Amino acid sequence: MSTAQETTGGEVEPWEQVTPDAARRLLVAAVEAFAERGYHATTTRDIAGRAGMSPAALYIHYKTKEELLHRISRIGHDKALDILRTAARAEGSPAERLAEAVRSFVRWHAGRRTTARVVQYELDALGPDARAEILALRRQVDAEVRGIVEEGVAAGDFDVPDVQGTTLAILSLCIDVARWFNVGGPRTPDEVGALYADLVLRMVAARPAAA
Amino acid sequence: MSTAQETTGGEVEPWEQVTPDAARRLLVAAVEAFAERGYHATTTRDIAGRAGMSPAALYIHYKTKEELLHRISRIGHDKALDILRTAARAEGSPAERLAEAVRSFVRWHAGRRTTARVVQYELDALGPDARAEILALRRQVDAEVRGIVEEGVAAGDFDVPDVQGTTLAILSLCIDVARWFNVGGPRTPDEVGALYADLVLRMVAARPAAA
Repeated sequence: MSTAQETTGGEVEPWEQVTPDAARRLLVAAVEAFAERGYHATTTRDIAGRAGMSPAALYIHYKTKEELLHRISRIGHDKALDILRTAARAEGSPAERLAEAVRSFVRWHAGRRTTARVVQYELDALGPDARAEILALRRQVDAEVRGIVEEGVAAGDFDVPDVQGTTLAILSLCIDVARWFNVGGPRTPDEVGALYADLVLRMVAARPAAA
Repeated sequence: MSTAQETTGGEVEPWEQVTPDAARRLLVAAVEAFAERGYHATTTRDIAGRAGMSPAALYIHYKTKEELLHRISRIGHDKALDILRTAARAEGSPAERLAEAVRSFVRWHAGRRTTARVVQYELDALGPDARAEILALRRQVDAEVRGIVEEGVAAGDFDVPDVQGTTLAILSLCIDVARWFNVGGPRTPDEVGALYADLVLRMVAARPAAA
């Protein structure tokens, strides 16, 4: 998977769960092709070719191109939810947990930006059922962050007049890292994560002691 | 242009400058096709068809598909720069000008999100010269916002340890509105603009008096 590692800044993609090896290689090839040319401009033949396989071999694992996108989107959203849930349910004050949620979410979007772009920009290409499933996961992602913000407000640690809108803005800020982040740029994923955690604590007006 | 108005929430696209009428219709058709299917999956034949014209008629106005994308990207970036420059050079304190810059930039990304998505997501499809031109415009966009932040810091109105990173985050927050904004959603472009102006003043720790 040297190509996948290269496009993700050296980090391993969250595809370990995909077996057998041929199914995983096809998924990695699909992510790359969708990111490079867009979902609609990519054929299953392109994907099979990138994976060094025949179109017939692809159909053993995936019946349609949409099934590949659905699988990628599902795995990406499961991972995003897992990252935010881990941060939300950790020990510490709301400010500490919100900062950790932002740091880890930013690191994911910077490190796995090829996957993140496909997951974020090709939602409209999913069929109704797959789309409904992914939107339900997105509501859970939103609820994890909103939960931390609500706890901080209840504890008197945060001052947030619009919890729903601020939660959306926090997630949006982190997600857009996938659009602009550049491995050749001046900042590492960890540095962007640290800056963004500070900016988000400012957005919720975290008490200096709480932060 | 009823279709274009529909996809942009009733706002008129900034294409008045494009003449003659046929060239403008082709540009609007290209924005819609690129937004819907992606640049690489769209042919000049698709674009001509959407505009109710023949491929031969398209070639009178645009030699290549890339020329259409370049023109769209150029107009979009010129408009973004104009919006931020107007806010940056208005009367008022740095906090007032930063808030107005965010409000108007958010309104643009919410109201013209179809155009904004094409402009933001299809940069990689531009050739080297067009890309260099657009990247120069993006540096100017960045400089307008950074200028307001620097003035606020110099005046003692803002507290910003990382001016460059914070400027990037402010722009990123506004740009990502084009990804998630939904005309059927609970907030109007003006409401998102007002919320985001408040969040950005928090990000720069604007003094309450200054804000």
